[in-house]
Amino acid sequence: MDNHAGNPRCIEVCFSPRLFSEIQVKDNFIVVLVDILRATTSICAAFNNGVKNIIPVSTLEEAKAMKDQGYLVASEQDGRKLDFADFGNSAFNFSREAIGDKTLVYCTTNGTRALEIARKAEKIAMGAFINLSALVDWLIQQDKNVVILCSGWKNKFCLEDTLFAGALTDRLLESRRFTTQCDSAAAALDLWQLARPDILGYIEKAAHRHRLRKLNLDDVIPYSFKLDQTKVVPVFEGKEIVDVTQ
Amino acid sequence: MDNHAGNPRCIEVCFSPRLFSEIQVKDNFIVVLVDILRATTSICAAFNNGVKNIIPVSTLEEAKAMKDQGYLVASEQDGRKLDFADFGNSAFNFSREAIGDKTLVYCTTNGTRALEIARKAEKIAMGAFINLSALVDWLIQQDKNVVILCSGWKNKFCLEDTLFAGALTDRLLESRRFTTQCDSAAAALDLWQLARPDILGYIEKAAHRHRLRKLNLDDVIPYSFKLDQTKVVPVFEGKEIVDVTQ
Repeated sequence: MDNHAGNPRCIEVCFSPRLFSEIQVKDNFIVVLVDILRATTSICAAFNNGVKNIIPVSTLEEAKAMKDQGYLVASEQDGRKLDFADFGNSAFNFSREAIGDKTLVYCTTNGTRALEIARKAEKIAMGAFINLSALVDWLIQQDKNVVILCSGWKNKFCLEDTLFAGALTDRLLESRRFTTQCDSAAAALDLWQLARPDILGYIEKAAHRHRLRKLNLDDVIPYSFKLDQTKVVPVFEGKEIVDVTQ
Repeated sequence: MDNHAGNPRCIEVCFSPRLFSEIQVKDNFIVVLVDILRATTSICAAFNNGVKNIIPVSTLEEAKAMKDQGYLVASEQDGRKLDFADFGNSAFNFSREAIGDKTLVYCTTNGTRALEIARKAEKIAMGAFINLSALVDWLIQQDKNVVILCSGWKNKFCLEDTLFAGALTDRLLESRRFTTQCDSAAAALDLWQLARPDILGYIEKAAHRHRLRKLNLDDVIPYSFKLDQTKVVPVFEGKEIVDVTQ
């Protein structure tokens, strides 16, 4: 039974952390952070494999200090694992054996910077194709305005995060609990409709994919675009990321 | 005869002035400034009607000071003409009778701010649907890398500027003198292909159009999306905008 009586909530899409200061929703909103290749996909994969919690840090110095304190640390720069770290940031690093029931410290050049920027939101949820439906269900329950924040590539617009923004907007509009007047959301929706029949074919265009391929790191790409591989919804509420569906 | 021997030049698209600091081309590039609704369309219309030159200013104080010095001044804020000014910034204001052979001072909340930001470029050309083909011919002659800078709406991504970025990218790629690896260019191209059969129908989605309609200022919209209404190429080279085809 639909017992939702209020007005629909708003969706806004931000194509880069640099545009976050321009969002129009004022307070009481949830940010969905998106970094498909890689941070948010990897974080969802880690929770799917039983990680207890994830502490995001935004500098290498913090990551090193946490390593010295005995934490497991995932850290990369420009897509490569750093020497001192236990893991890079590919979703495939986070097996149940390696991280099950443990705390992971996570530092990336891209995703955690966006997390810093989004701190004025009430909650920050991690969005990825692999947890799309679980995220949609959770957002509908929360009944708040939603800002979809694409990490982009070094603050530039990127296609893979935009496609996810389109897919999520599509599902939220379908629920009739949400509405949007945002041009970025309209563009993301159209690009998602175009890409949907053959996402991997479409994403061939993405500059970031070519960068990963140069680094021989593109093994994780097909997984990153598979819908609904997990039911986790990792959420950051000030200190650490936990799976709110547990 | 094609006497072009070098490598193709690069195209990069910026969806907002806020993203301009992230562009990857380093020097020796031309910026194409885009503010379809309104600044760049209006500036092209003014040159089409014989304005001698345009002095862009970025603050109301400067605009008022120039008015006191006896200049004709176009100035608006949030789409409305300001009291002290001779004109707002609709393309329809700039008739040959009003501005032919005169110097116009131009101040807008949106477009001239983007002009300020783009000052590190060698030249800044004004791009609009109404001068698309003339602009393409001129850019091919210049043989430099091109950054298409969308003004957006208050620094936010907007559909109408993005469609123009797609149309211009399409024509430059067609010439085979240009190439692109930019995700924003790829997205703009796809959105342009979608919109092209019915641009006005497509642009119904644009939030900015709804804002203009609320202000009863949308009379100029159909004109703003008509291709090739003029052969002017207004270019800013440090102090004033002149038509380089004269």
